[in-house]
Amino acid sequence: MAGSELRADVWIHEYITPWDLYSHGITRTLAYRKTSFQEMYIVETGAYGKALVLDGKWQSCTGDEFLYHEPLVHPALLLHGNPRHVLILGGGEGATAREVLRWKSIEKVVMIDIDGEVVEACREHLPEMHQGAFDDPRVELVIADALKYLDETDRTFDVVISDLSDPIEEGPSFKLFTREYFEKTRRALAPDGVFVVQAGPVSPVKMHLHCRLASTLRAVFPHTASLSSCVPTYAAPWSYILTSAKPIETHPDRDGIDRQLAEKTTGGLRMLDGTALLGTYQLPKYLRAAIAEETQVYTLAEPPKFFGKGTLGDS
Amino acid sequence: MAGSELRADVWIHEYITPWDLYSHGITRTLAYRKTSFQEMYIVETGAYGKALVLDGKWQSCTGDEFLYHEPLVHPALLLHGNPRHVLILGGGEGATAREVLRWKSIEKVVMIDIDGEVVEACREHLPEMHQGAFDDPRVELVIADALKYLDETDRTFDVVISDLSDPIEEGPSFKLFTREYFEKTRRALAPDGVFVVQAGPVSPVKMHLHCRLASTLRAVFPHTASLSSCVPTYAAPWSYILTSAKPIETHPDRDGIDRQLAEKTTGGLRMLDGTALLGTYQLPKYLRAAIAEETQVYTLAEPPKFFGKGTLGDS
Amino acid sequence: MAGSELRADVWIHEYITPWDLYSHGITRTLAYRKTSFQEMYIVETGAYGKALVLDGKWQSCTGDEFLYHEPLVHPALLLHGNPRHVLILGGGEGATAREVLRWKSIEKVVMIDIDGEVVEACREHLPEMHQGAFDDPRVELVIADALKYLDETDRTFDVVISDLSDPIEEGPSFKLFTREYFEKTRRALAPDGVFVVQAGPVSPVKMHLHCRLASTLRAVFPHTASLSSCVPTYAAPWSYILTSAKPIETHPDRDGIDRQLAEKTTGGLRMLDGTALLGTYQLPKYLRAAIAEETQVYTLAEPPKFFGKGTLGDS
Amino acid sequence: MAGSELRADVWIHEYITPWDLYSHGITRTLAYRKTSFQEMYIVETGAYGKALVLDGKWQSCTGDEFLYHEPLVHPALLLHGNPRHVLILGGGEGATAREVLRWKSIEKVVMIDIDGEVVEACREHLPEMHQGAFDDPRVELVIADALKYLDETDRTFDVVISDLSDPIEEGPSFKLFTREYFEKTRRALAPDGVFVVQAGPVSPVKMHLHCRLASTLRAVFPHTASLSSCVPTYAAPWSYILTSAKPIETHPDRDGIDRQLAEKTTGGLRMLDGTALLGTYQLPKYLRAAIAEETQVYTLAEPPKFFGKGTLGDS
Repeated sequence: MAGSELRADVWIHEYITPWDLYSHGITRTLAYRKTSFQEMYIVETGAYGKALVLDGKWQSCTGDEFLYHEPLVHPALLLHGNPRHVLILGGGEGATAREVLRWKSIEKVVMIDIDGEVVEACREHLPEMHQGAFDDPRVELVIADALKYLDETDRTFDVVISDLSDPIEEGPSFKLFTREYFEKTRRALAPDGVFVVQAGPVSPVKMHLHCRLASTLRAVFPHTASLSSCVPTYAAPWSYILTSAKPIETHPDRDGIDRQLAEKTTGGLRMLDGTALLGTYQLPKYLRAAIAEETQVYTLAEPPKFFGKGTLGDS
Repeated sequence: MAGSELRADVWIHEYITPWDLYSHGITRTLAYRKTSFQEMYIVETGAYGKALVLDGKWQSCTGDEFLYHEPLVHPALLLHGNPRHVLILGGGEGATAREVLRWKSIEKVVMIDIDGEVVEACREHLPEMHQGAFDDPRVELVIADALKYLDETDRTFDVVISDLSDPIEEGPSFKLFTREYFEKTRRALAPDGVFVVQAGPVSPVKMHLHCRLASTLRAVFPHTASLSSCVPTYAAPWSYILTSAKPIETHPDRDGIDRQLAEKTTGGLRMLDGTALLGTYQLPKYLRAAIAEETQVYTLAEPPKFFGKGTLGDS
Repeated sequence: MAGSELRADVWIHEYITPWDLYSHGITRTLAYRKTSFQEMYIVETGAYGKALVLDGKWQSCTGDEFLYHEPLVHPALLLHGNPRHVLILGGGEGATAREVLRWKSIEKVVMIDIDGEVVEACREHLPEMHQGAFDDPRVELVIADALKYLDETDRTFDVVISDLSDPIEEGPSFKLFTREYFEKTRRALAPDGVFVVQAGPVSPVKMHLHCRLASTLRAVFPHTASLSSCVPTYAAPWSYILTSAKPIETHPDRDGIDRQLAEKTTGGLRMLDGTALLGTYQLPKYLRAAIAEETQVYTLAEPPKFFGKGTLGDS
Repeated sequence: MAGSELRADVWIHEYITPWDLYSHGITRTLAYRKTSFQEMYIVETGAYGKALVLDGKWQSCTGDEFLYHEPLVHPALLLHGNPRHVLILGGGEGATAREVLRWKSIEKVVMIDIDGEVVEACREHLPEMHQGAFDDPRVELVIADALKYLDETDRTFDVVISDLSDPIEEGPSFKLFTREYFEKTRRALAPDGVFVVQAGPVSPVKMHLHCRLASTLRAVFPHTASLSSCVPTYAAPWSYILTSAKPIETHPDRDGIDRQLAEKTTGGLRMLDGTALLGTYQLPKYLRAAIAEETQVYTLAEPPKFFGKGTLGDS
C-alpha cells in the first residue's frame, strides 16, 4: 500500500476538550445539508464506517454505534420487563428505535426529533442504523420540539429514552436536562415506568455532567442507577442514568438476563447480554465517589452550560 | 478566555488506525531525548496532564494512567493472593512498580526495561507516575532486553507482568508476544504463579491482537481470562489477559475483594475495588465471541506484525 | 467572538510535501461528487472563499485564483499580440477561459477537459470563477482526453494554454508533460503561436518539476521563459513557462504593456498590469540557476513521476 | 518507503488565519525553553530544515529563510550605498546580522533583542542561520527592549532594520509599529539614513497591516516604497517597506545592482541580485491600489491590534 493511500484528505475534527481532538479521515461524503436547525454531514470514514455528524459534532457511526445504543435501550427495557409503549426523545438515526423494536411486547414507539431533514437523510443514507425502523407500523415519528411535546402530552409511557445530544448552551436540548423537565418526564411515565438518559462522558477529566445529572435525577425519582459503556469513537467512557419507582438491581443475574432476552426479544444483539449488562453497572471507584458526592441540581434557572464536546463543561 | 488561548500550537498526533487520529495539544515540553532505542518526549498536555511519548506513540499520561495500571496489576496480584516476588517486563514510567508496591507481601520487584535513558527521564520528570518506586529498596531495576532476561534467568516469580508496548514489527517487543516466549515466561513462574499481559485495544474494528494473544496463551497455560478497562486517551477499550495454573474466577465477590484489598495493600487505589474488578471481567458479547473463535497462535516463525497504533493490525 | 466559533470542524488537508500540510477549515460543502475520473468537492472555506478540490488536491479558490489565472493567461496573449484562436487544456473551473475572453481579438476558445461532471458542477456552483464563460458563444467546450485531442486534431491555434493538474503518476495528465506531447502541441500551434504551461511550485525545497519542464520545453521550442506568481493557498511560489518561435522579452516596458492591455482587452484585471508582469519575469537567483543547470528531459519513456502535492517529486 | 514513515507524530500548527493552518511535521526537537518572555522551540522539520518557533509562531527556518532575510537587508543597504553603522531591532536568529555583515563598508552592527535566552539558543542550535555573526567583532549584541533603546539612544545609524515579530496585542512589539516610534527611529537615522521594516503578509485576504504601516510611514518619512518576497513557509507573500530621505528607484538597473553587489559585498547571496531586486519592487496591482488608498495611521493611541498569525488582523 503506497503512502499516499494511507491518508485521507478531508477530516472531521472533533474537539473532546479544547486540548484534545479526535479526527476521522473521510473517504466519501454521502450527504450534506444545512437544515433549519443544524449543519449535517453523513460521511464514510476509513476506520469506523458511516457516520452522522451534526454541527461538526460526531453523533454515531456504524462501526461502534451498537456499543452506545444497546446499553442505552436494553437495561431500561429489562428493568421494566414488559414494555409496550416507549417514548424516544431525539434518536434521529433510528438506531434507538431499532433496538426498542426488538422487544416483542412493544406496541407503540413514539419518537420525537426536532429535525425532519436529518431524519430523512438518515433514513436514506444510514439503513445500517435504522434497519427499517422508520417503516415499522409500531413507530410514530413526530417531528417536533421535545420540550413542547413534554409540555403538552397527556400520554403515558412504560419507558422514556432520552437520546439527546449533549446540552450545549446554544443548543435547544439543555433544558431537557433540568429538574423541571425531568418532572414533566415523570408525569409522562406510567407508575412503573422507567426513564433512561444518555448522560455524557465519564472520563476522569470530564465527568461533571454525569454527576450533576445523577444529582438532579435523584431529586426527582425514587431510584436511580448509573451505567457505563466504552464507545471508542467518543474517546471517553460513555454513561447513562436509569430511574425507576422501584429499587434497581445493579448486580443482575447473568443467566437470568440471558433467558429474558431470549424470550422477550427477537435477538440480534451484538454487545449486550447478561455478562455485558453486569459489566455496565460496575463503575470504577473514582466515578462512583464523584457521583455520590455531587449535590448540584440542574434547573431552568441554573441549567447545564458550556458543556459538550470541545469544552471542559465547567457547570 | 480568548479564542487564541484555546489552541495549542504543538500537537502530538497519534494514529489509532490509518484513518483515525487522536491529537493532544502540548502546553509544555518537559524533556526530549533521542536515546539509543527510541525518540522520547515527556510533555504536558492541556487536557490530560503529563504524558510519556515514545517514537511518537502515546504511552501513558498522569490524567488517566490509573485506569490502565490498576487493572494491569491488581487482578493478577489478587488472583495470586500472596505475591512476594514480582517481575515486570517494561513499565518504564514506574507506575506498574508503584502499584505492585502497594502490596504488603511484596519482597522483591524486578523491573526489566531496555531503555535506561527513558527510565531516568521518567524518574526525573514524572514523579506523579512512579511516586518514589525507583527508590524503594524492594525494587531491582535491570536495564536490559527482556528477551535476554527470560532466556537466561533461573529465578522464579509469583507474578510476571508484561507491560510492553504493542508488538510493532520494527520494535524489539514483538517476540515477547509469541508462544516460545510465553513458555519461557511460564518457566520463570512459581507453580502457583500468575502471568498478566497488556493485550492491546479491543474495539470492534481492531481487536485481532487480543484474540490471537488469548489463543496463544491458551496454548501455553491451563487457564486464561480476559479483562478490559476503558482508558480514554487510548481511544479504544484496552485489554489484559491473565493466566494461571488454577481456574480463574471471573465473577468475583465484590465485598470479598474489598476486604482483601483493605487487608493486603496499603490502599490508595483510585479505580479498582471489588465493584470495578467485577466490571473488568465482564466483556461485551462481540469480544467474547471473537476470543472464543480465534485459533491463530503467534510463534517466532509467525509473530504478530504491523500491529500497533496507526495500523489495522492485520496479523 | 467565542473560542468555539473560531474553529471549523471539517478540514481539507493538503500535503505540500509529506512533512508539511496546509489545511483549510470548511464552513460549507456546496457540492460533492464521485465522478468517473475523480472525487470532487466544492466547498466554502473560512478564509479564502469557495474552492474546488479534486481527489483531495486543492485546485483553486475564489480568494486568490486571480493570482494564478491572470499570469497564466495574459503574458502568453500579450506575447502573441493578436490572439484569435486559443486552446485550453484542462481549466475546468472556467477561470482560464474567462481571462482569455477579456481579449477583444478572440474568435474561438476551445477548452478540453476530461471530466464533464466537474465542469458542470463548477458551472453551477462557481459563477465567481467562470463569470459566464461557458455561455460565451466564442467558447467551444470539448469533454475529452487532451491526449487524444492533441493526437487527432488538425486545427491550429494562436495560443495553447496547458492548465492541467500536476503530473502525478496515477493521473492521466503526466504524459502531457513530455517531449512527445509538447511536440504535438507545437504542431497545433500557428507559426507565430505561443504555448504556456502551468509548471508547478518553485520553492527552494521543491522545484524539480519546473526545471525539468523548462529543460524539456527547451528541447522542443526555440525560445522559452519562466515566470512566477505567489499564490498564497498553494503554499509555494507558483510557476509558468512560456514558449515562442521568437525571442521573449523578459524585461517588458511597463507603460507599453498597460497601453496594450487597455486597448486590446475589456479590462477588469486585478493582479496583472505592466508593473506586475515585469515582476513575474524576474525570478530569484537560486531558481534561475537551477533552471539553467537542468538537463533532464521528460519523455514518454521517462515521464515525471510521483510528483504532485504530498510528495517531494523526486523525478 | 512505507506509509508509516511518511508521517511525523509531532506537528507545529500555525494558524495563518482562524480558518487556515500550515503545519510542519517535526522530526527532532533541538531545544525547548520557557524564557522570561516567551516559549521557544528549535525543531527540525521534515521538509524545511531547522526552524525557530516562538509562542507557537513560526519565525524562520533554514529551508527558506534566505527568501525573507536577503530582501529585508540588501535593498535597504543598496539604497544607502555605503552603510557603516546599522541598527537591527529584533533578529534573534542572527540571520539579519549575517546579511548585513556581507557588506564590506560595515563598521558596527548593533542588534537589540529582548530575549537573551532565545539568542543564546539560536547561537547554539542554528549555526546555519547566524553563520558566526554573533562572534563577529563588528557586532554589538544588546539584550534589551527596543522601545527603551529608541527612547534613550543618541547614536545615529546609516540603516535601521526592523526585524520584529508581527504586532500582536499581547506582545511588546506593537508599539514599535506606531508613528511615535517611527519618529524616534527617524531621529536615530543619519540624514541620508534608510529605514526598512518587515511589514507582514500581503495576500489578498490579509494585507491590512502592510497598507496601514505604509500609510503610517508616509506620515513620517519623505519617501517610502513597498517590496515583496514569496516565502513559502509563511503561506503568504511577505512584505517590507523602505523609507528614505531621497526618492527611491523602484525600477533599478539590473546590471548596475549586480555590479554594486559584486564590489561592495563579500557575495554568497542565494536569492537576491539585480534581477530579483527588480522583481521585489514590482507589486501586483491589487496591492498597489490598496496601499495607495489606505489613510489610517497607527499611533500609540490607536496601535495595530489583534494582528498576527491566527487572526484576520482587523485593525
